[in-house]
Amino acid sequence: MTIPEKVDTPEILIDRDVLQQNINRMAAAVHAKGLKLRPHVKTHKIPEIAQLQLAAGAVGITVATLGEAEVFADQGVTDIFIAYPLWVGPRQAERLRRLAATTKIAVGLDSPEAAEAMAASLGESAGDFDVLLEIDSGHHRSGIAPAAVVGVAQAAERAGLRVRGVFTFPGHSYAPGMPLKAAQEEQLALGQASDLLAQAGFEIIQRSGGSTPTATLTGDSVATEVRPGVYVFGDAQQLELERCAAEDIALTVAATVVSRHEGDDVIPRRVILDSGSKILGGDRPAWTTGFGRLLDYPDARITALSEHHATVVWPEEAGLPALGDRLRVIPNHVCVAVNLVDDVTVISGGQIVDRWRVAARGKNK
Amino acid sequence: MTIPEKVDTPEILIDRDVLQQNINRMAAAVHAKGLKLRPHVKTHKIPEIAQLQLAAGAVGITVATLGEAEVFADQGVTDIFIAYPLWVGPRQAERLRRLAATTKIAVGLDSPEAAEAMAASLGESAGDFDVLLEIDSGHHRSGIAPAAVVGVAQAAERAGLRVRGVFTFPGHSYAPGMPLKAAQEEQLALGQASDLLAQAGFEIIQRSGGSTPTATLTGDSVATEVRPGVYVFGDAQQLELERCAAEDIALTVAATVVSRHEGDDVIPRRVILDSGSKILGGDRPAWTTGFGRLLDYPDARITALSEHHATVVWPEEAGLPALGDRLRVIPNHVCVAVNLVDDVTVISGGQIVDRWRVAARGKNK
Repeated sequence: MTIPEKVDTPEILIDRDVLQQNINRMAAAVHAKGLKLRPHVKTHKIPEIAQLQLAAGAVGITVATLGEAEVFADQGVTDIFIAYPLWVGPRQAERLRRLAATTKIAVGLDSPEAAEAMAASLGESAGDFDVLLEIDSGHHRSGIAPAAVVGVAQAAERAGLRVRGVFTFPGHSYAPGMPLKAAQEEQLALGQASDLLAQAGFEIIQRSGGSTPTATLTGDSVATEVRPGVYVFGDAQQLELERCAAEDIALTVAATVVSRHEGDDVIPRRVILDSGSKILGGDRPAWTTGFGRLLDYPDARITALSEHHATVVWPEEAGLPALGDRLRVIPNHVCVAVNLVDDVTVISGGQIVDRWRVAARGKNK
Repeated sequence: MTIPEKVDTPEILIDRDVLQQNINRMAAAVHAKGLKLRPHVKTHKIPEIAQLQLAAGAVGITVATLGEAEVFADQGVTDIFIAYPLWVGPRQAERLRRLAATTKIAVGLDSPEAAEAMAASLGESAGDFDVLLEIDSGHHRSGIAPAAVVGVAQAAERAGLRVRGVFTFPGHSYAPGMPLKAAQEEQLALGQASDLLAQAGFEIIQRSGGSTPTATLTGDSVATEVRPGVYVFGDAQQLELERCAAEDIALTVAATVVSRHEGDDVIPRRVILDSGSKILGGDRPAWTTGFGRLLDYPDARITALSEHHATVVWPEEAGLPALGDRLRVIPNHVCVAVNLVDDVTVISGGQIVDRWRVAARGKNK
């Protein structure tokens, strides 16, 4: 695919056909395992893409914040899980009540204190929401150790909340060699927590798991649903984890070569692209090979990233691209890249076919 | 300072009094050295702050993109340097011409090819802009080696452009022990390039240097002006480079403790804040101690960052904060944090006194 002439750089391009393929493939894989799909829309923040996911059989969506929930509820999504240990004060409670008027809302929780704050702020509405307890399955971010889940569930119940499920995010899957191990630990943790809750008399109807690297990896699944996000676009992390192939990449950043240097013994041979951290995002886990990849030059490496400069070191045997050339860059972490722009350009067969608004951009609270 | 009750988290707070102090101090230090100050506004992207900088004696502003130039020109700024090796096609040329109708515009350049493209696209307007040649003073990003500058200047002149200066960004100052060395190399490179150009008959009236770490470090200065940006706010990088103190930090992210874990032999003792990479930015150079700092807890460390979670490991001897507590986080790199929000909350004496729009947010092209 060439970059359409009309596109000024840097600009996010979405290949509609690859996007649709990715949506269909994940839906088929998840359904083949007898699981429900509740995609995380923090990846794209675009209502048009959520509609494609729902049309392909998603049961609802996952969001990270109240603000994201509000954007997608406004667009007619009627089943939303806020997969985050929300701290609910009076203003958050008012927003939850407004959401619940049109939309089935579930919220995350991982402590008695948060349960009590949430229940106190929600008052009589406390029973209108499904609560899912967050379990730590090995990522050691938020979440309750499985063995400790009953205490939190009982505190939530005492406070007047309705505990209906458990969820976990196996974020430790984001490293080479880890997806399968993380997927197994996810199932183990969800199973242990659910069993303990069932023994304590709780009816657990929703057991919700992650993530793009793990969603299709587990065998017999304890989870009832999965919440992958990145799969719609793919990104350089998924590519380097071998969880997607170059032909699955649906989102790239169109960039222009603005500076070009043959280098010498001391100074690296490089080109500079106008796609910096303010459009690619600055994520750079230690195990990645750089700050993103070039779709059409798999051996080139982005060795440094400033706000408006990507420094790309070129393989010695290959000729440097020319000044003014336009290249397609794959962000390391696509979720943070999309959140940096107001709109994206949608292409199909090399032509611009649409422009979508990133409606939930910046909805951090 | 406590976080005003009305603030929902995560939210960017700017302390107006510290901001004004920082603006005054840099202006005084730069003027005391006989230099002009042309602050880089990519740091804040906020017209109200540019006006404070101009009121304190800045001769104009620096931007990185045409879009930033357009926002600040619209707000009445009349002297703008686009410190970037722009690749100018017909659409960029049209925007440059519109800008030049109200504003003195200088643009960066580092190759004969870009000079020819720019001149061809600008046509008869090519002489309406000052061109500054970018010099590589050791950062090895964009920029011409000082020894090669005359060839590029002659190509630009042949193409019909008006070469009036040189500029450099000593970005290698952003590492421990490097600011002074980078500042010296900056002066050396600017001096060498200017001398060669003068010998070749060019009149060089603008010699422009970086950066917050180096702006006040050099002795007898070759530069005629400096372009620091970050100094208005400070950030965790500047703090760890000892280029600002905790009391100079004018921008923090208000965050809430949403999850809290005493930890054990395997799992770290930590709290989780709702300030993730979608508000702090993901920048994490290898020499930093984490993904940002906590203003009031200098020994706490942000060991991991997800989009909506900051994992903060707490010193063993100190008690963990409570769930629901609100803390002030210092981003590692303030320029990318501001670019993630539409508005910032301005405080003075612990009270909310204003709300400023990040008018140039997302203006990447």
